[in-house]
Amino acid sequence: MDDELKFNLLKQAIENQMPANKLLGLKIFELKNGFTKIHIPFREEFIGDYIQKRWHGGVIASIADTVGGIAAMTSMTSFSDKVNTIDIRVDFLHGATPNDLFAEAEIIKDGKRIIKVDVKIYHKKEKIIAVARCAFSILRIENK
Amino acid sequence: MDDELKFNLLKQAIENQMPANKLLGLKIFELKNGFTKIHIPFREEFIGDYIQKRWHGGVIASIADTVGGIAAMTSMTSFSDKVNTIDIRVDFLHGATPNDLFAEAEIIKDGKRIIKVDVKIYHKKEKIIAVARCAFSILRIENK
Amino acid sequence: MDDELKFNLLKQAIENQMPANKLLGLKIFELKNGFTKIHIPFREEFIGDYIQKRWHGGVIASIADTVGGIAAMTSMTSFSDKVNTIDIRVDFLHGATPNDLFAEAEIIKDGKRIIKVDVKIYHKKEKIIAVARCAFSILRIENK
Amino acid sequence: MDDELKFNLLKQAIENQMPANKLLGLKIFELKNGFTKIHIPFREEFIGDYIQKRWHGGVIASIADTVGGIAAMTSMTSFSDKVNTIDIRVDFLHGATPNDLFAEAEIIKDGKRIIKVDVKIYHKKEKIIAVARCAFSILRIENK
Repeated sequence: MDDELKFNLLKQAIENQMPANKLLGLKIFELKNGFTKIHIPFREEFIGDYIQKRWHGGVIASIADTVGGIAAMTSMTSFSDKVNTIDIRVDFLHGATPNDLFAEAEIIKDGKRIIKVDVKIYHKKEKIIAVARCAFSILRIENK
Repeated sequence: MDDELKFNLLKQAIENQMPANKLLGLKIFELKNGFTKIHIPFREEFIGDYIQKRWHGGVIASIADTVGGIAAMTSMTSFSDKVNTIDIRVDFLHGATPNDLFAEAEIIKDGKRIIKVDVKIYHKKEKIIAVARCAFSILRIENK
Repeated sequence: MDDELKFNLLKQAIENQMPANKLLGLKIFELKNGFTKIHIPFREEFIGDYIQKRWHGGVIASIADTVGGIAAMTSMTSFSDKVNTIDIRVDFLHGATPNDLFAEAEIIKDGKRIIKVDVKIYHKKEKIIAVARCAFSILRIENK
Repeated sequence: MDDELKFNLLKQAIENQMPANKLLGLKIFELKNGFTKIHIPFREEFIGDYIQKRWHGGVIASIADTVGGIAAMTSMTSFSDKVNTIDIRVDFLHGATPNDLFAEAEIIKDGKRIIKVDVKIYHKKEKIIAVARCAFSILRIENK
């Protein structure tokens, strides 16, 4: 499959056809083999700590899982490949203020059957809000 | 603080004052020292895999973080205690079909400064959809 | 393969042919489909905190990984199946005093390609020293 | 406390007074605020997979926990500070061949009460064998 076509189709499916992604309001900034960067505009509904006005940890965890999955999908060589999340660990480093968030995910192992991804979530890249590490299984229709 | 009063106030704050919890639509079933059980009604917006109609993994991760945090809060002895999520691991065991989810969380270590919580998410308790384990820090205003 | 034969061969391979297991001095107590229990006699070399005389966290992590792997191997239906550790999370709940340790591991998901295992480490079962959760990939020679 | 004195005392305590570190045979290469690098010479007893001659995963997990703890200790400002491991996640990326291993650990959050550390384990830095992420609690005798 042609790379440009693949990434255009992936972007459309991720942004428009997955209801939970629309609920999150995510926009894909960058999408290439092994890497993605997304943007999540702040919304009042994402607040957890209503006194300090911080993003809810659960929303951060949701972003981490989502952006990790998008990076993993860039490893597919056919839309019939099946990618499933095995597990994820999220580490919270700092509270997220009521501003937009950005999230990057990078494949650190691109195996035949297992994909590992590193995630960073931040307002500005100098101060990371949360990091995550995820494992995915991939069932490749045609072996690489 | 009186236990009944504590749990009533906690329940109100969790269900009504935390915007992200309203977005999730969670209802607390049970809330006692070291344990909680919540109910999350299915909504179309929670779908990730639009072909197989499965709950999005990110929503599951969000539920895990949320229910874990509620259990951790039951360890507070004052509303001035501060509870922060350190990290969470979510293990996905089976896809979640378009039906309501239930989530339980239980404290497995209730320390002076650290709280550990085990989480189970399921449609019916015989078939667990996901498990999670979370660590929280607690800054106790008055030492236990 | 006959179950009794399978478990006898596994026990021998695990206790006698894997050098790192001999270094740990582990003995298998119980081994059956989806479950194992092992015993690790205390040795002075396992101490980390030499003032308080506590088992080193690294040795606990090693035990967790080892016992989890043994449980995962009980899911093999052929000695040609390949089991690899994907990742492990260890949660330390209490310090381990200079006494023997026991460790149990139980499969919580026995999939075609992924196995998940829960681990408990303790002196006496009422007071758990550490828990762990591990993910393994399995390449099954003959599909179940 | 003077930094040079602090690191000399730490190095001595870590290499010579902690029995489990001697069993591992670790040597500290580099030790500074927020970072350490160690060397673990290969030994036959560290083998797990006796056919392919790979380091045992449990030994890798032990190295990850150990090097993470050393980095966390560099955050101490008094030898009366208490550092405890909360949890650790180890991700295995590639099998480790019968050669020496190196491990690096870097503090990614140096909080008042919580420290987070990232770990890399490798033969040669271009091909990482395993990564880990650990959380520690620190009880600081004198607040920073």
